[in-house]
Amino acid sequence: MTATPSSTTSSCTTSNATPSSAAPTLAGPDTPFAVVDVHRTRHDIARLRARADRLGVPLRPHVKTAKSLDAAALLHDGVPGPVTVSTLAETEVFAAAGYTDITYAVAIDPHKLPRVIALSRRGVTLRVLLDSTEQARCVAAAAREAGIAVPAQIEIDCDGHRGGLKPDAPELTGIGRVLDDAGCLDGVLTHAGESYFAHTDEERRLAARNERDSAVAAAGRLRAGGLPVRTVSVGSTPTAHAAEDLTGVTELRAGNYVFFDLVMAGLGVCTVDDLALSVVVTVIGHRPEYGWIITDGGWMAMSRDRGTAAQHRGYHVVDGSRSSAGVPVTEAFWPRVTGW
Amino acid sequence: MTATPSSTTSSCTTSNATPSSAAPTLAGPDTPFAVVDVHRTRHDIARLRARADRLGVPLRPHVKTAKSLDAAALLHDGVPGPVTVSTLAETEVFAAAGYTDITYAVAIDPHKLPRVIALSRRGVTLRVLLDSTEQARCVAAAAREAGIAVPAQIEIDCDGHRGGLKPDAPELTGIGRVLDDAGCLDGVLTHAGESYFAHTDEERRLAARNERDSAVAAAGRLRAGGLPVRTVSVGSTPTAHAAEDLTGVTELRAGNYVFFDLVMAGLGVCTVDDLALSVVVTVIGHRPEYGWIITDGGWMAMSRDRGTAAQHRGYHVVDGSRSSAGVPVTEAFWPRVTGW
Repeated sequence: MTATPSSTTSSCTTSNATPSSAAPTLAGPDTPFAVVDVHRTRHDIARLRARADRLGVPLRPHVKTAKSLDAAALLHDGVPGPVTVSTLAETEVFAAAGYTDITYAVAIDPHKLPRVIALSRRGVTLRVLLDSTEQARCVAAAAREAGIAVPAQIEIDCDGHRGGLKPDAPELTGIGRVLDDAGCLDGVLTHAGESYFAHTDEERRLAARNERDSAVAAAGRLRAGGLPVRTVSVGSTPTAHAAEDLTGVTELRAGNYVFFDLVMAGLGVCTVDDLALSVVVTVIGHRPEYGWIITDGGWMAMSRDRGTAAQHRGYHVVDGSRSSAGVPVTEAFWPRVTGW
Repeated sequence: MTATPSSTTSSCTTSNATPSSAAPTLAGPDTPFAVVDVHRTRHDIARLRARADRLGVPLRPHVKTAKSLDAAALLHDGVPGPVTVSTLAETEVFAAAGYTDITYAVAIDPHKLPRVIALSRRGVTLRVLLDSTEQARCVAAAAREAGIAVPAQIEIDCDGHRGGLKPDAPELTGIGRVLDDAGCLDGVLTHAGESYFAHTDEERRLAARNERDSAVAAAGRLRAGGLPVRTVSVGSTPTAHAAEDLTGVTELRAGNYVFFDLVMAGLGVCTVDDLALSVVVTVIGHRPEYGWIITDGGWMAMSRDRGTAAQHRGYHVVDGSRSSAGVPVTEAFWPRVTGW
């Protein structure tokens, strides 16, 4: 995310204040506000789509990043396509907008299965994720009770980042069987979350290979056990941009790439010029003795994502180009960010 | 903030799922959701009010913390009283609800003065904050143009935490004069932001004394220059709970204390049992090999506030009492928090 401060403390141009009712512009007074650069967004989307085409694997973008139907419309040329979501609220919004091919890529809470089944009955192919025998039994029981299949994917842990079963976990095939007996086994899914700490192309290539190998190995064990595996899903923004060979993988997931952010720029997955989301703020104070500017973009406006902290880089990028008659100035924000 | 996980992966009690339309309860399935303990909130509010009464200084609570008219109604026995806000959006919501005594305690962006003046014309006494001659000139010009006074406070920097002028800043009286010439000088305001790092009662007592002395000294310089100072406003949750003598101060501000949080508990300003806001989440995974639980309360639900990082304490507190038949279990969250 970048912050674009407009200079005001050196002038009293209140006359150019647009009423809140008017169509917003970059010069609007009601800072802070977010701005999406649609040209950059289209470029970022096209870049990964071209990669996926070359790799011969369909994309299933994660829409938790944009949380926007307008942004999602850019993913598949305005036609609702396959998406990944992280909450049922997102699922219900995208389903209402005509999306019918959705993967809910957060381990399922059995209490939420009634909402999952309600969406399935509305014609949405909604896949759930799980990594325990208990969850598998709950999904199977709910599917039998409802008289419909609830397609489920087994989460595979490829790098110890979060949840999932290791590809060689003893319980893997047992979980697959519990699901298959209820017609609910769809496949496996993994996410190379540790690739957010992969600082070189080579590290990301290795992470992509490991992500692929983990998912393919788990799928192989299920198939060796006589179980059907339709979906072998992998992806993270860093690995999706580094993968060279996705043999055995049936779909690629990524979400951050739609706008990118300073974490991805810091890793080298993109450049700062690829960042498509900015927050326009107003400079409301200077502390030259500390090298600080103070803006009206507080924690609520700029988020407290400290993803770049591990990179020992600036928290936000400040583009002062609007505040000077000269050339654009881009500098790292101060390392310690204080909020209102 | 505390997280209260309900156990689900060990049972398939989907039958007790309440429909989203039903009145929510702590057993509701639609986790994550926030819960405010009104009893604790009333206790926390009464505690600071009693302190302020003993100190003989009126309270002007900061409502940016709760951002809730219902919570704010507890501050002044249901009657709209003096409040502090951090955005014009908050100002407009509270003004619409009948609050007429509001301090907008973020340095003013001149572009926002039309909205400030519109609120003043609606009968709201809305004070703005500033720390530069440029801002003072803008406020004075806007007030003259509108033909009304815009009460302004000069921000004083008592501890180098954020914005403001040092109490001995040469430009202080000049700024005061620019404001007074337009009938806009209301007083001074300071905030001991560094008290969020004051780990002992003694450090907080010293921070409170310094906060008071800084504001009173600045007010004294303005008065010595023949300028009227009505308001001498100080406050932060840690200093408000430590101040012993607020002679010369006309009002005390604090916001966090309404619910408190782990930062305040970590400092010793309150105990974990005083925390009035919790997020109810569901355990959706276990990684016993790492000592992890995984819940459906991600970054969006739990916030990414790392205020406790400086305390080398847990990020969230997990109260497992609902997940066991035994005694409540309270433990620190894992230090590295991963999100969806």
